[in-house]
Amino acid sequence: MNYQSLSPAELIKEKEKAEGDYRMYCESGLSLDLSRGKPAADQLALAMPMLTEHTDEFRSAGGTDCRNYGVLEGLPEMRQLFSEITGIPAANILACGNASLTLMYDAVARAMLYGVQGSPRPWGREETVKFLCPVPGYDRHFRICESLGIEMISVEMDAHGPNMDVVEELVKDPAVKGMWCVPKYSNPSGITYSSEVVTRLAKMETGATDFRIFWDNAYVIHDLYNETDPLADIFALCKMYGHEDRVFYFTSTSKITFPGAGVAMMAASEANLKQILPIIGTQTIGFDKMNQLRHVRFLKNAENTAAIMRRHADFIRPKFEAMLEILEKELGDLGIATWTKPNGGYFISLDLPDGCAGRVYELAKQAGVTLTPAGATHPYGKDPRDRNLRLAPTFAKLEEIRPATAVLCCAIRLAVAEKLLTDRQ
Amino acid sequence: MNYQSLSPAELIKEKEKAEGDYRMYCESGLSLDLSRGKPAADQLALAMPMLTEHTDEFRSAGGTDCRNYGVLEGLPEMRQLFSEITGIPAANILACGNASLTLMYDAVARAMLYGVQGSPRPWGREETVKFLCPVPGYDRHFRICESLGIEMISVEMDAHGPNMDVVEELVKDPAVKGMWCVPKYSNPSGITYSSEVVTRLAKMETGATDFRIFWDNAYVIHDLYNETDPLADIFALCKMYGHEDRVFYFTSTSKITFPGAGVAMMAASEANLKQILPIIGTQTIGFDKMNQLRHVRFLKNAENTAAIMRRHADFIRPKFEAMLEILEKELGDLGIATWTKPNGGYFISLDLPDGCAGRVYELAKQAGVTLTPAGATHPYGKDPRDRNLRLAPTFAKLEEIRPATAVLCCAIRLAVAEKLLTDRQ
Repeated sequence: MNYQSLSPAELIKEKEKAEGDYRMYCESGLSLDLSRGKPAADQLALAMPMLTEHTDEFRSAGGTDCRNYGVLEGLPEMRQLFSEITGIPAANILACGNASLTLMYDAVARAMLYGVQGSPRPWGREETVKFLCPVPGYDRHFRICESLGIEMISVEMDAHGPNMDVVEELVKDPAVKGMWCVPKYSNPSGITYSSEVVTRLAKMETGATDFRIFWDNAYVIHDLYNETDPLADIFALCKMYGHEDRVFYFTSTSKITFPGAGVAMMAASEANLKQILPIIGTQTIGFDKMNQLRHVRFLKNAENTAAIMRRHADFIRPKFEAMLEILEKELGDLGIATWTKPNGGYFISLDLPDGCAGRVYELAKQAGVTLTPAGATHPYGKDPRDRNLRLAPTFAKLEEIRPATAVLCCAIRLAVAEKLLTDRQ
Repeated sequence: MNYQSLSPAELIKEKEKAEGDYRMYCESGLSLDLSRGKPAADQLALAMPMLTEHTDEFRSAGGTDCRNYGVLEGLPEMRQLFSEITGIPAANILACGNASLTLMYDAVARAMLYGVQGSPRPWGREETVKFLCPVPGYDRHFRICESLGIEMISVEMDAHGPNMDVVEELVKDPAVKGMWCVPKYSNPSGITYSSEVVTRLAKMETGATDFRIFWDNAYVIHDLYNETDPLADIFALCKMYGHEDRVFYFTSTSKITFPGAGVAMMAASEANLKQILPIIGTQTIGFDKMNQLRHVRFLKNAENTAAIMRRHADFIRPKFEAMLEILEKELGDLGIATWTKPNGGYFISLDLPDGCAGRVYELAKQAGVTLTPAGATHPYGKDPRDRNLRLAPTFAKLEEIRPATAVLCCAIRLAVAEKLLTDRQ
């Protein structure tokens, strides 16, 4: 049965059936949450040895007393670990505080106040500053731009990343100074940028001499399966094409150890660091080295970190699979929704017929299932087609995923049936 | 013997004597450091139970999983502890990351980008922004202004704080938007603002409607003796005089627990917080709550924190006293130097005859004693009279303080004798 080919009478019948199911769900008093891209408590337990073992150690390998001030770039061994994880030379890496979001906000705010390496003037002194925002994307990236008065231009994503024909055209505008990317297991679609997309991002000519890609590789080693989606090395490619200052690279241990108490990193070219470090050195005497030390002690090296990530995957994978199973079972043949099937990351992206996402969000909410608000995946919180929803299966308990997804599917059936009937009137 | 009343012949003799002593010090191969306002290792050891006890706890009193995202304002119990320490209502307090310097830089940067509560426009859009800088003062405050292009105006300090007649006159200029204050055991003079000074700061009329005092109460409970220098409550006084939005208040546990891994706080009026929090919420999902939790577990309450501070004082006080003893013994009757005798904090401020500070810094350095560079206590690193030096007795070992100070005194005798002889030519 495909909703699109139903007669009005059949559609009314489907709507009534969905209404009946929906009423039943509402009466069952559910309270489930699919909104948050947070690790669940059993994942956090994996990192508890970090807090409880060897806790009296406070010296870095080089002999630094990590309790005291100093070491602006972060502990050498933490930078080395990030280097092993990302493939970027340790010399280009800063190991910082607990949030890569802060590093990203600060990088944009700094550009507004001072400009970046090669800027003719601070971005805040430009008439207009524009950023390209692949959609669906991460609401917190968009909020940084909105907060700082940066104009956002949406670029549609497909299965290979942002539409590069569009990107290459848009970056000819010298007012386009930046672009957000979550290149691996993208938030929320879960897709990984293809090698061609990454190469074209590194190679393209831009109108602005000080264009920057904000490369938020949040899910760099966050695989669900043994196979990983390969991601080309933007850092090396930018260098190869003579654009080594183009990329500000970010990641963190937020979803490796603790979201609230991890270590974030930023990587950039030598020239970029030379411009940035004196400013960071005005902002701080040093980041929390004790937390960096406890991370290095616990994570040890890239191989051991990968082993820890496999244990995370063992918790997360069944939740993704349960959600995908219910989506397929409930909506598979109705022709009213498509969704991504990621190999990693924290999200599934769901596309509905235009004009249905907001209604589904409301219906699910009233039935006790909280979703990320419709629109959140687009700049200014406005999805122009009102069709995309971000699903976050990780934080809920496994046994909650199926009922929560069933409610969602019921809300979709109801909302789409309503919409189709209205459209045909 | 007073250098000022010596005959040229006597002065030459003194200079030759100082040269002889100086040569001896140079040959003895010392390497001592009086430059850094850092706690010594034995002080840091006091907080080690924070890292090693109850390390498996991760829930706040209210049940929050501190490992995960969230709680933008910081843990309620950490805000409460800062409230007990400062006397400011917990509702006005944010418990944040590891560095109050970052909170201060961010507060000024935010004002440049967005303005503050009541600003007609972002400070960065003003023709000129000026800050009042009591001198001698803290170089890192001055560097924030310099980095962000804020013009600094020095205001002389006396034993009661900044000269308020001058301050009240200068703040009539609407371009004066801010003022730095280290109100208790000031860096570097060690003096505490008198009640009259604090009252006048709270009460004064300013040309700018959005004038802010950056109140860096870094040494809020950092007494050397059982008696504390009383400090009036700027927060309450500003409110009383109808200027409750005037103060941004900062402190931290940097010199209570660990300089590099403590917890910093910012306090502000309700209207200020309402303006600031959405911006901070764009910059982070939350500060490191695990570190806040371990601080609250260890520090417990204001009374227990005060007990810990008495143990710090037991380490620091002998160092201050040793330094003061040598200064008095070597320079007491020469009429060539004055210095402060603080009841707390981390510094002694030394004033020499004009034009001698840079020379003393160089001479001490060549003899193996590192001082904070001359000029550092003034905006732009330039002491117009070249006479002030900041002495930091805490980081060196106790047994190093006397020899290091003796070298310093010898360098002073030599430099001043040279200067007096030159001046008389």
